[in-house]
Amino acid sequence: MSSLELIKEISRTSPTKIVLLLIDGLGGLPDPQTGKTELETASIPNLDALAAQGICGMADPIAPGITPGSGPGHLALFGYDPIECNVGRGVLEAAGIDIELEPGDVAARGNFCTVNEKGLITDRRAGRISNEKCTELCKLLDGMSINDVRVLVYPVREHRFVAVFRGKNLVADVTDSDPSQTGVSPLDITALSPQAARLADIAGAFVEKARALLASHKPANMVLLRGFAGKPQFPSMPEVYKLKPLAIAVYPMYRGLARLVGMNIASTGTTLEDEFATLKKNYNSYDFFFLHLKWTDTAGEDGDFKRKVSVLEQIDKAVPGLTALGPDVLVVTGDHSTPAVLGGHSWHPVPVLLCSKYCRPDAVKEFSELAFLNGGLGRLSLTQIMPLAMANALKLTKFGA
Amino acid sequence: MSSLELIKEISRTSPTKIVLLLIDGLGGLPDPQTGKTELETASIPNLDALAAQGICGMADPIAPGITPGSGPGHLALFGYDPIECNVGRGVLEAAGIDIELEPGDVAARGNFCTVNEKGLITDRRAGRISNEKCTELCKLLDGMSINDVRVLVYPVREHRFVAVFRGKNLVADVTDSDPSQTGVSPLDITALSPQAARLADIAGAFVEKARALLASHKPANMVLLRGFAGKPQFPSMPEVYKLKPLAIAVYPMYRGLARLVGMNIASTGTTLEDEFATLKKNYNSYDFFFLHLKWTDTAGEDGDFKRKVSVLEQIDKAVPGLTALGPDVLVVTGDHSTPAVLGGHSWHPVPVLLCSKYCRPDAVKEFSELAFLNGGLGRLSLTQIMPLAMANALKLTKFGA
Repeated sequence: MSSLELIKEISRTSPTKIVLLLIDGLGGLPDPQTGKTELETASIPNLDALAAQGICGMADPIAPGITPGSGPGHLALFGYDPIECNVGRGVLEAAGIDIELEPGDVAARGNFCTVNEKGLITDRRAGRISNEKCTELCKLLDGMSINDVRVLVYPVREHRFVAVFRGKNLVADVTDSDPSQTGVSPLDITALSPQAARLADIAGAFVEKARALLASHKPANMVLLRGFAGKPQFPSMPEVYKLKPLAIAVYPMYRGLARLVGMNIASTGTTLEDEFATLKKNYNSYDFFFLHLKWTDTAGEDGDFKRKVSVLEQIDKAVPGLTALGPDVLVVTGDHSTPAVLGGHSWHPVPVLLCSKYCRPDAVKEFSELAFLNGGLGRLSLTQIMPLAMANALKLTKFGA
Repeated sequence: MSSLELIKEISRTSPTKIVLLLIDGLGGLPDPQTGKTELETASIPNLDALAAQGICGMADPIAPGITPGSGPGHLALFGYDPIECNVGRGVLEAAGIDIELEPGDVAARGNFCTVNEKGLITDRRAGRISNEKCTELCKLLDGMSINDVRVLVYPVREHRFVAVFRGKNLVADVTDSDPSQTGVSPLDITALSPQAARLADIAGAFVEKARALLASHKPANMVLLRGFAGKPQFPSMPEVYKLKPLAIAVYPMYRGLARLVGMNIASTGTTLEDEFATLKKNYNSYDFFFLHLKWTDTAGEDGDFKRKVSVLEQIDKAVPGLTALGPDVLVVTGDHSTPAVLGGHSWHPVPVLLCSKYCRPDAVKEFSELAFLNGGLGRLSLTQIMPLAMANALKLTKFGA
């Protein structure tokens, strides 16, 4: 029995409420000048007070040493095995522009590219055409019907688009047409299993029609497709946890990930304060809230230590408004670390804090990587946080007689 | 997807270098007189300084409570599941005398033994004949050809030898002829699966020919075979990690284990200092170094607490020469604990230290079992050390988009 099957068997509804405050890229590394991490540098008295009240630990999103992308990091956080439930590139790209896929859909990431008169790729990104040009060309390609399959083409930005193949009997097990290099022709899309032959044919036909339609649109005179992926078939969070969950996220990628696991999606604004206000407004209507804060990760990715510190301080100021709502369980964690000194996602475990009336206290008094090493949660897998949150909300009955 | 498959998918080459300093049998138990372990007793300022710089923890080679042999301990260290990838006795024995097996070979551990006129075993070790006698008798048996299978016979020492069966369609799934007791006849070698019938027949024929050839050589007038095992088919370290690895080890068993996972094997001398000199000499030509130091284990096996302490101090003196090479990642650990008070391998977790520019610091200041309990790596599986070393060397890309 998988962990999700176990939880599904013992979960129950109850009036308690869980808030999962996700600070994207939480967890860092010391600034070589000061020897202090972003969390140690920031003045975050409210988070420190929560650490003193709650139980703390360090969590691995996937496994020690493995750096997660946003997809696996969030799926682990929602309690799903991030390797078994890995979401293909096409589906993530669709999620990232708020496209709701239907069961049976296959999505692929597309690039407009430049080919020369011999058909060889000279620029895989077509000189990064403008967003307007991308939208215009997507309209040209959108809506084809090939062997009873509709091909929907959505602009992302610059040279990037998403192609969604919608029809019966589509199996995503096909190769990319993108050779990931220039000086060669786009590759044929071939089936990796017999069932995928139909999609390979249709996707190949789409590419040839696109070539014809784009011929006069140099530099964007061809397309490359990669990361074909079907809509994943996970059991949803309402099924597994018997929760009524609401996702609050400014960035579409995270709304998309939440949608894949069956959360309701809130309308919200564009700022951190908007998100907390959206939580407050919807607090009576749901029993689980996923509040996604992106800006820590963005600052870390930019290698901007100071900005990451200042975003942490801004989040800290919003904490009292959240705790005033009186959630039965509050979890504060990340989907992965993004140390500013690395300028990207990293493999380091993420700090986790859980507050509830029933968490067993530990001696941690400070919200930092070093302090959390001595926390009562110890070192655990990020997939174990949802069961812990559910238990602390008294939403799990016992297993076995 | 197994952990090795995951790593294979995300590993990449880079100019960084990893040194894995393996102190065999590292980790002990307190001397009842002083209450201090071997590590706590030894004066090891250089290792202490590394502990203060790096991140520390305790690793289980197999699982809590399970004492590993050298094979599983090292395979775990190299990142292989030590239960799934367990190497048969015959193959380990061959590795231990530096024999390079070919794909399809089956190896068995052999004993010369004594049988009486009724064919009943009276001494399973033939009175521990001399190494010279063993070599002489192996020559007598070596090189037979039976049904297109060559049987190669190599002396180990005293009554011990290795038999390698080389030919087509040999499946190692056969029973031992060694009954592990005296007063009975050697057992028939029987196939445990239909595909193994050919090997069972050939091994049986070899035993009967050996009986005839050895008739006049009492006390060594018969052979016993056990631990038939085929050459394992692991993905190699160069395949999985995309490393160019070099193994430096004085004892053949460890060279053999390194060879099984595809490492290059250095020529080195017979002392600890020779091994460090070999590392220095080859430092520019490889990007991964497995440096195996045996003497801590030998002292522990001998129950010699003081000698184990003094070997640790000798190793400590060599550390500055190693760090002067500037490896990007340095790991110091063991394949299992060998507490002198137990006089053998034990189930206790082994101390692990990892130093790199990107390891998150912890509060550990001393290289000891007790201090490492509070280390930032926490308690982990020894199989997770290679992924961590790879991550810290920036040789792993992220998993998932």
